[in-house]
Amino acid sequence: MKKYKKQDEYSYTLGTTLTMELLNKKVEYVKRVYIHSKLEKNDTYYKMTDICNKNNIEITLSDKTINTLSDKENCYMIGVFKKFEESINYNYNHIVLVNPSNMGNLGTIIRSSIGFGINNLVIIKPAVDIFDPKVIRSSMGAIFNINFKYYDTFNDYKNECNNRDFFPFMLKAKTNLKDKVINNNYYSLIFGPEAQGLDDSYLSVGTPLIIKHTKNIDSLNLDNAVSIALYEFTKDSSF
Amino acid sequence: MKKYKKQDEYSYTLGTTLTMELLNKKVEYVKRVYIHSKLEKNDTYYKMTDICNKNNIEITLSDKTINTLSDKENCYMIGVFKKFEESINYNYNHIVLVNPSNMGNLGTIIRSSIGFGINNLVIIKPAVDIFDPKVIRSSMGAIFNINFKYYDTFNDYKNECNNRDFFPFMLKAKTNLKDKVINNNYYSLIFGPEAQGLDDSYLSVGTPLIIKHTKNIDSLNLDNAVSIALYEFTKDSSF
Repeated sequence: MKKYKKQDEYSYTLGTTLTMELLNKKVEYVKRVYIHSKLEKNDTYYKMTDICNKNNIEITLSDKTINTLSDKENCYMIGVFKKFEESINYNYNHIVLVNPSNMGNLGTIIRSSIGFGINNLVIIKPAVDIFDPKVIRSSMGAIFNINFKYYDTFNDYKNECNNRDFFPFMLKAKTNLKDKVINNNYYSLIFGPEAQGLDDSYLSVGTPLIIKHTKNIDSLNLDNAVSIALYEFTKDSSF
Repeated sequence: MKKYKKQDEYSYTLGTTLTMELLNKKVEYVKRVYIHSKLEKNDTYYKMTDICNKNNIEITLSDKTINTLSDKENCYMIGVFKKFEESINYNYNHIVLVNPSNMGNLGTIIRSSIGFGINNLVIIKPAVDIFDPKVIRSSMGAIFNINFKYYDTFNDYKNECNNRDFFPFMLKAKTNLKDKVINNNYYSLIFGPEAQGLDDSYLSVGTPLIIKHTKNIDSLNLDNAVSIALYEFTKDSSF
């Protein structure tokens, strides 16, 4: 087993917590679990062996493989899984990320989206690879709860999913986030790339919204902007 | 010049953008600017030399120093500054971080705080060092706009600043963030350490608030939680 590359058919979870999340949520895609000789035989260990036995998943003891795949010292369990298919639920709200380039941000955004009950993520290419072990780690396993789909262009997505309100988040928008009005059954919250934000073409898409801030910063961090939007749009939900 | 250590009297900004922010905001603390032989002589370069000349700041060309201090290839300017004094404005709103341990989070929180106009930050020890170059970098220079002060305990802070509403953010809180009521002229938003959150003793401090989320995640990322709180508390301000 070699370090992950984008074109690989398989990816993996680094560490016990993430691997247990994988086994609990996407067991049908798990190919193998690697364990380290230092792994303690505690409750979690027996839960893991139980799941693996029931699902015919091979458990391989290999310190060498774990040391090859993980940069951290205290990683004692790795789950190898087949990358699962992409699909989103059209009859639901979406988060849309246009050209996200930071793996840590993508993982944190997935975690926040799941936290606020929006389990469908659209990613417009070019973009980082959602299956990169770094994204999986920063999502803290939330990736195994989300539906997602990559599109080549925003228009491809829009043509496929037009049963909704579109809200692009832009510094040039005229409507304040807090004054948003939802007209359709569903909505999509759209965010641009980390450095530049959405380009001006999005000013004519749906109702652009702005999260007002002082002039002392250029912009909010992408995952903070997404979290604020998620909060405002879902704050009347009963979680 | 050696790599930064917490006990050092000086710290530094890595890169042109941060160094210009330092020169614009805290010039009186700047001791020296290091430049790399690859630095282009563009507008920013002349602005930098102009500020340095006017303020008697030495400019030293040293690729070796820059390579020693920076892990990144394209860092061509470093500003060395004396760590400035700690102070907060008592007659203002505060963000209070109890035992923050992640440097990236601290920097991002500073950036968001400045973004929402709360320029006073209280940090309860033990905590990461705000002057670490990694914090400075992730704040994108917002650190040069913020007042901050470290306290040994939360009670030390509370005894010094009791002219305000205290809002600890806790999963055990009974009041929803959106239902907050502000009674005093000023308020403090209080957040616990990344992994554990605030301990139960904070349930009796002011009005604990919760940012409701689904059970599919354990908690929100700290900087996302702070950003959401900042948004909700300041959304009627005119930025």
